[in-house]
Amino acid sequence: MDRAPAGSLHAAAVLPAGGSGERLGGSIPKQFCTVLGRPLICHTLESFERVTWIKDIVVVVASENLDLMKTIVNKYGHKRITVVVGGETRHRSIFNGLKVFLDGQSLGSVIQKPEVVIIHDAVRPFVEEDILLQVAISARQYGAAGAVRPLVSTVIASSPEGCLDHSLERAKYRASEMPQAFLFDIIYQAYLKCTEYDLDFGTECLHLALEYSNTKAKLLEGPPDLWKVTYKRDLYAAESMIKERLSQHLCIITNINEEAIEVGFQLHENLKHHISHVKAISLSMYKTVQDLQNIFHGECYNFICINVKESDLEETCKLVDLLKNGKVTTSYPLVVISIHLTVPNCCSSDTQTLTGIRQLAKEAKKSNILVYGLLITYSKDASRLQESVCEGSSIITALIKVRNPALLGQIMTV
Amino acid sequence: MDRAPAGSLHAAAVLPAGGSGERLGGSIPKQFCTVLGRPLICHTLESFERVTWIKDIVVVVASENLDLMKTIVNKYGHKRITVVVGGETRHRSIFNGLKVFLDGQSLGSVIQKPEVVIIHDAVRPFVEEDILLQVAISARQYGAAGAVRPLVSTVIASSPEGCLDHSLERAKYRASEMPQAFLFDIIYQAYLKCTEYDLDFGTECLHLALEYSNTKAKLLEGPPDLWKVTYKRDLYAAESMIKERLSQHLCIITNINEEAIEVGFQLHENLKHHISHVKAISLSMYKTVQDLQNIFHGECYNFICINVKESDLEETCKLVDLLKNGKVTTSYPLVVISIHLTVPNCCSSDTQTLTGIRQLAKEAKKSNILVYGLLITYSKDASRLQESVCEGSSIITALIKVRNPALLGQIMTV
Ligand SMILES: [Mg+2]
Ligand SMILES: [Mg+2]
Repeated sequence: MDRAPAGSLHAAAVLPAGGSGERLGGSIPKQFCTVLGRPLICHTLESFERVTWIKDIVVVVASENLDLMKTIVNKYGHKRITVVVGGETRHRSIFNGLKVFLDGQSLGSVIQKPEVVIIHDAVRPFVEEDILLQVAISARQYGAAGAVRPLVSTVIASSPEGCLDHSLERAKYRASEMPQAFLFDIIYQAYLKCTEYDLDFGTECLHLALEYSNTKAKLLEGPPDLWKVTYKRDLYAAESMIKERLSQHLCIITNINEEAIEVGFQLHENLKHHISHVKAISLSMYKTVQDLQNIFHGECYNFICINVKESDLEETCKLVDLLKNGKVTTSYPLVVISIHLTVPNCCSSDTQTLTGIRQLAKEAKKSNILVYGLLITYSKDASRLQESVCEGSSIITALIKVRNPALLGQIMTV
Repeated sequence: MDRAPAGSLHAAAVLPAGGSGERLGGSIPKQFCTVLGRPLICHTLESFERVTWIKDIVVVVASENLDLMKTIVNKYGHKRITVVVGGETRHRSIFNGLKVFLDGQSLGSVIQKPEVVIIHDAVRPFVEEDILLQVAISARQYGAAGAVRPLVSTVIASSPEGCLDHSLERAKYRASEMPQAFLFDIIYQAYLKCTEYDLDFGTECLHLALEYSNTKAKLLEGPPDLWKVTYKRDLYAAESMIKERLSQHLCIITNINEEAIEVGFQLHENLKHHISHVKAISLSMYKTVQDLQNIFHGECYNFICINVKESDLEETCKLVDLLKNGKVTTSYPLVVISIHLTVPNCCSSDTQTLTGIRQLAKEAKKSNILVYGLLITYSKDASRLQESVCEGSSIITALIKVRNPALLGQIMTV
């Protein structure tokens, strides 16, 4: 496949987000349903914002959602976004989105007509740069391109009486998914030429390009994660997938105290079985925000911080401050687990620690950082310590994977 | 539609469970992946076992999974199940499943040839009696019937060069889903008559009935929950859906102490905003196991139990014992939250309570009961109490919805 450097592409995107929530059985359209604390469409926008060669992102919404969408763009700090009002149907909305690039020119706006336009649904959040680049480059070569997937179910045609007329041979057909990409003029001309019937009842852009611009789209096998969030179960799946991705990396921070290092080492060994990438670093390594950012490559959303004394929150406070000021990332909630070593048979949690963690958690929440506490009984007996560390690792893993704000500030004990 | 009483139906089911885990990208076939502590197929079997007019359930597995499947049936106590080995392909497996009803007869087995046979995938766990009855009754009338769903994506045909050839008009087609039902002789004859090519490359039973038994299947619009668990995200969705269903009902148990009743009342008011059905009962109402079962109709998987004193676990222990002995249900984990009232500014959790709840939780886990603790600061000041109760309600809701075994025995505080 032709893999020209993306740098030479002048591409833009149109994201139809005009759908109603009917199929979800609720009144909130699915693109605005909350997934991990933010509207679903934010996750899709973020996928596009990461791709630097996509210069402009036009979001097309129903008129009743125009203000909501503008508020979302501001609130979550999305960039390169233009919000416009769509039409009655999917095709009319996409057509409205395309018009922005021409209207923009005539009005002297910064938005320019792109060579290639990518069309993608707001309710398909997991689109990666790789497939975006594939469809864009194929569109330049073929005029049009779209991602497809194998059919999961057999497709059948029904007779007027609601009985089976015939079934299609599954292997010969594909499900047409998104993203799709077009040379701008090809899809725009197709929309200009197509019928009112197409605009009202059609749904497939590739079909318009074929019918009205005589362009046979290149079909590319896309990854399964491109699926369209349609039902409530899809929202559950999307949230779980994001949580799974956020749980891949964990950083263990210990100070140079001997006991802390020992517990940190054992946690490291245990947590490797639950979490793909575990790194342990010590205090001395992260003196500046820049160090911290270099260590994590902006990929780590989970931190555990080992304090020696039960009442000592210093290490955790320092970490939380660094994360806050470093703006390592704020789009997804970070998890910080403050670990405190206690002596066996001691009164388990003292009020001071409890209050301290509670207050720290309350403050950190404002920066989208979820702080939890964990008391680990430190025993000189190796097998008893191992038991505590093992149980502690299960709790740490659960807190990271569950990522539930209702439990923040709570202190677990093992 | 003809809604003959189900009682007059002699129906059986065949569940092909021979699929490999290739599409999930893992080595465990999806029907055996763990969903809320049990293999996915257990959830599907339970949906069938609830339907009394389905007399026999034949599960068809790959030979390498025969022992595993038999172990699962025994371990989780499934009833009316016959496990048989399938063939190389989906159709060959279903055919093997059907043969059991005839072989059984000749061998004098208790399995009898049914009038109607339902075919359903092991990886579609959320099948309700309603749609099973619809397909079974339609099969009796039309000879064959199957559930269908609207297409989510446009279906397109590809040219040999991998370009768009044509797209199908979405409204004219349906996705063929499960369950399907047939008069036994119609589908069995179709399998006897069909070609080796059909057996090797076909997937659609409705097609065989049409082609070889001249039977046009009745198509019935099924609910969205019938979807096939195919990808990892579908496992996430299935687990979340089950958890959502288990979180619909909550029972609050208080003793007759004034403070307990007050807190119970306020929790009731708050929790109504998070959980669909909340019932509060007092000690005097549940003296026998039978009472408890009558109150809950086997529908309630969540209990909170309000103890007045911090160190007092009596109420909670009593409840856990009742749940254990009453066998209200053991197929899904029950959640019991032990609430303890504390005085403001007191040392927050004493070691005795902590140890007590920890031990109770450990014991209860063996009966699939997840016990958590929650300390609520009881204040005479109405607004401060309201604040604690509000925060406590969020924690209770989170524990119920998350249903995570790693956190059992932990004590939350508000
Ligand atoms: Mg489409
Ligand atoms: Mg099928």
